[in-house]
Amino acid sequence: MKIGIIGDGQLGRMLILAGIPLGFKFGFLGVKDSPSGNLGEIFDNILDLENFADIISYESEDVNMEMLEKLHKPIFPPKQALFISQHRGREKAIFAKLNINCANSIVVTSLTELKSAIAEIGIPSILKTTTEGYDGKGQFVIKNAAQIKTAWQKLNKTEAILEAFVDFEYEISLITATNKTTTKYYPITKNTHKDGILRKSEVIDNYDLQLQAQDYANKIIKELDYIGVLTIEFFVKNGLLIINEIAPRVHNSGHWSIDGAKTSQFENHLRAIANLPLGDTKAIYKDCTMLNLIGKHKSITTILADDNAHLHLYNKISRPNRKIGHINICK
Amino acid sequence: MKIGIIGDGQLGRMLILAGIPLGFKFGFLGVKDSPSGNLGEIFDNILDLENFADIISYESEDVNMEMLEKLHKPIFPPKQALFISQHRGREKAIFAKLNINCANSIVVTSLTELKSAIAEIGIPSILKTTTEGYDGKGQFVIKNAAQIKTAWQKLNKTEAILEAFVDFEYEISLITATNKTTTKYYPITKNTHKDGILRKSEVIDNYDLQLQAQDYANKIIKELDYIGVLTIEFFVKNGLLIINEIAPRVHNSGHWSIDGAKTSQFENHLRAIANLPLGDTKAIYKDCTMLNLIGKHKSITTILADDNAHLHLYNKISRPNRKIGHINICK
Repeated sequence: MKIGIIGDGQLGRMLILAGIPLGFKFGFLGVKDSPSGNLGEIFDNILDLENFADIISYESEDVNMEMLEKLHKPIFPPKQALFISQHRGREKAIFAKLNINCANSIVVTSLTELKSAIAEIGIPSILKTTTEGYDGKGQFVIKNAAQIKTAWQKLNKTEAILEAFVDFEYEISLITATNKTTTKYYPITKNTHKDGILRKSEVIDNYDLQLQAQDYANKIIKELDYIGVLTIEFFVKNGLLIINEIAPRVHNSGHWSIDGAKTSQFENHLRAIANLPLGDTKAIYKDCTMLNLIGKHKSITTILADDNAHLHLYNKISRPNRKIGHINICK
Repeated sequence: MKIGIIGDGQLGRMLILAGIPLGFKFGFLGVKDSPSGNLGEIFDNILDLENFADIISYESEDVNMEMLEKLHKPIFPPKQALFISQHRGREKAIFAKLNINCANSIVVTSLTELKSAIAEIGIPSILKTTTEGYDGKGQFVIKNAAQIKTAWQKLNKTEAILEAFVDFEYEISLITATNKTTTKYYPITKNTHKDGILRKSEVIDNYDLQLQAQDYANKIIKELDYIGVLTIEFFVKNGLLIINEIAPRVHNSGHWSIDGAKTSQFENHLRAIANLPLGDTKAIYKDCTMLNLIGKHKSITTILADDNAHLHLYNKISRPNRKIGHINICK
């Protein structure tokens, strides 16, 4: 079976590495000098990729929907999930429809609307772009009235979303894999960010939070007729989950699963979209932690001197704040 | 670091898949339509491969020594280990020198010499080619005097080796990984053959046999200044090991380690030859069994319906008696 992946980043790279042993062939939309370079056929045009592929998937939400609408081959995860995840306002609307606990939010299209929204939601709150935000980019915390205008100007968009500030204790994510008949759930991870960038994800054993997360996940999966790996991020406060956002794809917080789970999120995404039986998602070590390598890394000799370390580099040139690899510590 | 691999079979394929996450770049001597095809740069000439590579390795004993002698880049495992493993007579001589328990054997170059050898070693015995035998090819069991001439004629070589027949209980193998300072040992596997082809390798927990095997391995590693993964096959009889042969490479009986060990034999071979710290070799499941897929396989859906199954296909066309993949069952 031939899988066409839109994108050539590290998620595509790890999907391809997971799928080659299963006999899949890969093509991707991207360039040779990329994390996916050398690992599959390279296409510079979506129609050629479609021509190559039996199934099309994507490794980022940053995919042009109009381009997808032109395609006739099966696309997984389903286009509607991508469409919703591309816009924070659409995400919040689905969460509200499904009765999923979520911070108050209002979409605004002018400074005047922002001021009314602040009056309703209160301060502190966060102004975010509705689209294309990642790694903490396009977000401004508003703590006092004087910051309202500045935030709007700095964001410099025609549309934004104001969200109530959640004074959460920590963030978790749940990764699920769904084929046509079954959903499997990875154990949740506690995620630590710095400067808006994920640094660490560690598997935690918290039955209550796991069940809350799975319950919310089931609602979303059903609503969206979901197929593939789906990631959901939540804030934790007083033992309750507050949903933050969804990603219709494999996710940085699931990279621990390459070494730490019986079946990785990458293999299960491929099994799901090819409608093969899903692999066991359980953790095979007591402790599984993923550490991102941001910008640079220590020597490979130093990293591998830790008997519990597994190294994953992405074939990316070092640059400040760039994710160039990760280390899984499994023990 | 750039690794050049002589060969393009499944062992090279799995080495490349293990090495890409560590940031290694690969080139190989072979063709595009092969198990290694698409996973590295392809060379049709050893000098171009040498030009590409920082380190050269090989994935089969079937390498022309004269060709290797022309190269100047580091070659691991060391050439002398390859030279010895290419000839059963040279192997037996080393085993004798190191006092490793081994079946009696005599190299013969004529029917007359074979008859004298039979007189000394007795019947039953096995006549084998000295070179290039694998998967049970080039072997004849001689059970009575009438079979002596037939075996010699069928073998049709100018040189052969007569070995005493070992009425062993079962076969095991030990896989070791050695860098410049350290050797690590995988747990031994019990290997089951049919028609001379390995069908199954299962990790066994037998402390006595493990220690005997490691003791013998240490002698060989020291004698050969060994670097890389080394595989040693033994017969087991009455709780004692009788050495059969060595392979200076990753080995079919170690494929379980991809899913079942903390670090796979493939990753550890690369770490060893690049003189990186070796990874932990321990089994992370109670039961680890590797099943070869010979000639054909059931549907992928059927295979993956077993929650404990991990599938590894080699991009090889189905053909009778051909190893086209394997399944690791870990539970």
